[in-house]
Amino acid sequence: MKATIYEGNRTFSVIEKELEEPIKGEVRIKVAYSGVCGTDVHIYHGMMDKRVNIPVTIGHEMSGVIDALGNGVSGFSIGEKVVVRPLDDRGAKPSDKGFNHICEDLKFIGIDSPGSMQQYWNVPAFTLHKLKPETDLKLAALIEPLAVAVHDVRLSELKAGETAVVLGGGPIGLLVAMVAKETGAQVIVSEVNENRVTKAKELGLNAVNPVNIDLVEYVKAQTEGRRADVVFEVAGVQQALDVMTEIAGIRGRILMVAIHGQKKEVDLFKFFWKELKLIGARVYEKEDYEKAIDLITKNELPFEQMITEVQPLSNIQQVFEGIDNNPDGLKVLMDCQA
Amino acid sequence: MKATIYEGNRTFSVIEKELEEPIKGEVRIKVAYSGVCGTDVHIYHGMMDKRVNIPVTIGHEMSGVIDALGNGVSGFSIGEKVVVRPLDDRGAKPSDKGFNHICEDLKFIGIDSPGSMQQYWNVPAFTLHKLKPETDLKLAALIEPLAVAVHDVRLSELKAGETAVVLGGGPIGLLVAMVAKETGAQVIVSEVNENRVTKAKELGLNAVNPVNIDLVEYVKAQTEGRRADVVFEVAGVQQALDVMTEIAGIRGRILMVAIHGQKKEVDLFKFFWKELKLIGARVYEKEDYEKAIDLITKNELPFEQMITEVQPLSNIQQVFEGIDNNPDGLKVLMDCQA
Ligand SMILES: NC(=O)c1ccc[n+]([C@@H]2O[C@H](COP(=O)([O-])OP(=O)(O)OC[C@H]3O[C@@H](n4cnc5c(N)ncnc54)[C@H](O)[C@@H]3O)[C@@H](O)[C@H]2O)c1
Ligand SMILES: NC(=O)c1ccc[n+]([C@@H]2O[C@H](COP(=O)([O-])OP(=O)(O)OC[C@H]3O[C@@H](n4cnc5c(N)ncnc54)[C@H](O)[C@@H]3O)[C@@H](O)[C@H]2O)c1
Ligand SMILES: [Zn+2]
Ligand SMILES: [Zn+2]
Repeated sequence: MKATIYEGNRTFSVIEKELEEPIKGEVRIKVAYSGVCGTDVHIYHGMMDKRVNIPVTIGHEMSGVIDALGNGVSGFSIGEKVVVRPLDDRGAKPSDKGFNHICEDLKFIGIDSPGSMQQYWNVPAFTLHKLKPETDLKLAALIEPLAVAVHDVRLSELKAGETAVVLGGGPIGLLVAMVAKETGAQVIVSEVNENRVTKAKELGLNAVNPVNIDLVEYVKAQTEGRRADVVFEVAGVQQALDVMTEIAGIRGRILMVAIHGQKKEVDLFKFFWKELKLIGARVYEKEDYEKAIDLITKNELPFEQMITEVQPLSNIQQVFEGIDNNPDGLKVLMDCQA
Repeated sequence: MKATIYEGNRTFSVIEKELEEPIKGEVRIKVAYSGVCGTDVHIYHGMMDKRVNIPVTIGHEMSGVIDALGNGVSGFSIGEKVVVRPLDDRGAKPSDKGFNHICEDLKFIGIDSPGSMQQYWNVPAFTLHKLKPETDLKLAALIEPLAVAVHDVRLSELKAGETAVVLGGGPIGLLVAMVAKETGAQVIVSEVNENRVTKAKELGLNAVNPVNIDLVEYVKAQTEGRRADVVFEVAGVQQALDVMTEIAGIRGRILMVAIHGQKKEVDLFKFFWKELKLIGARVYEKEDYEKAIDLITKNELPFEQMITEVQPLSNIQQVFEGIDNNPDGLKVLMDCQA
């Protein structure tokens, strides 16, 4: 079998190795597609060298087919289509209050342990979610990031008739916008990259560039002065933090999806004044995965257009180099059998 | 009748004037007691000279008795004990979504219009809440700040068995702590002023000084590592903002009660990582007033000890000068008939 290895120093190698038998409680998956996540790019840039166990196979946005069952695995059969929910919560404690998806000792599979950028991948059976026989395996590689979006929208309690503003039209922001629109809410995407604004419009979204328009006035005009009921912060920059408290209306909910590595300035007065809520959101729970699987299987949203490139696994080095030179691309998939 | 006037420049005057008849929809109240709020001290310090309409009578934490009814006022009779909920929400619009207590055009009576630091006070009848004949009028002057605390605890959804940490043991923080404890939750007060720590203990609260102990370790020890389910930020300083995200456990709720005039640094990574919630809380709604009235009327909590001084209205200048020299005092009441 073929496997890719992140070696540090912006370098991947592609190796041939023996197929491994799954141990007790694990299954072997024949990986179909593995998407490149912003986190994978961070790892490639060396930003997470302290956390990842170099040399290591990375990747966690995948689809595949069960290839072999370890001892003690029941309820699954060889040939079934599956995706992995890459959360190893075996270290969960009572102090995690049952929120195992964010438990203190959570291990993220594909970061803290080997990932999916290989032809075959052994994972604990408890991480599996079954797909339908008719689910498209290429689209299914979007289930992981889509589940992030489903989780964010669920925690926001967005309802039909409300207005949501999504700050940042990257892969996550666009998926959030699509899922938000599905609820029947009015959705506005704010994105500074003109090519991504165009892309968002192609996806059927209402997208604006805050460099060209006054976002606060625009949101007020679209809501008869009510402003946004929900704001999703998916840009990760100070400007988004500055505008989020402006565009949120009375009792507005702001979902903190972006990951801010440093402390940032926040207008807490506006939280008091308008009784705003800031809601942190991280990964997904089981039900979010099931909802994402359902959406992908029905395929009524323009998911296809989120995939801007499919490349054979053996091209991994060129793919990561290419992503740095193309800030407009959205989701790149590795074809793990090519 | 006697009235006090804030003249600007840290100066109050006390004047004699004619009793005014209440206009249509208003009542005249014979004010019993009027408490000094932190906001009143801000006004005295000249921090709000742009907002208040100098020369003006201030004050909004009061109790009294109905003295005269204007035209069109029904459901009230002369001699009834009442408190005023000092929110003039007559400017509420559909874009306020029914959250009239924080509507965009809210006027705060006693700041934006004349207040209660006078012998008789004319106010719109819709601001009134009736007391019971047996309600103590001195304690009733605490209903306004107590309603703030009731509102904060209600929005926090604190439950029996949970742990709440109150950052800041000033008048508001101590009332929040008392109300939080009433829910059956474990409550820890963190306060840097040693005299206020002692006061909190006298009120039967578990209070610590974060200068002397490691608050994070203390909270972990008190919760078997779970940390706080709810944190009330009632101190208004950067140190409290820094520690609030540390002491909050997974899915912890942080109530932003303090008013931060400037943008402040917040650890947004922790909001993402632990899926924390930040909840802005401002003043109170009708039901909070009713709950506060009920608590004061029952008088089962040590409210009496919150009142550290009662002074005749005519001493107003000395009272405000004295507050600056005594950071340990809690609630000072003006006796408006003396
Ligand atoms: N909460 C979670 O579990 C979770 C999961 C995945 C990703 N994330 C985070 O979500 C964020 C978005 O991920 P992504 O992969 O879409 O990243 P991305 O960098 O591709 O997208 C961010 C987008 O924001 C745009 N942007 C920058 N400044 C802006 C501004 N002022 N206004 C509007 N848009 C602006 C950028 O042009 C870019 O398109 C990242 O911070 C990522 O770490 C969180
Ligand atoms: N949300 C609302 O509607 C509302 C209503 C009333 C008051 N407030 C605000 O609530 C806050 C508290 O009001 P108050 O009247 O009790 O004020 P206060 O100044 O008397 O109380 C603040 C307390 O925090 C303490 N403190 C300072 N640094 C601390 C630290 N690092 N850790 C712990 N404690 C610390 C101070 O010693 C003080 O006792 C103020 O910001 C006020 O503006 C809000
Ligand atoms: Zn990912
Ligand atoms: Zn007050």
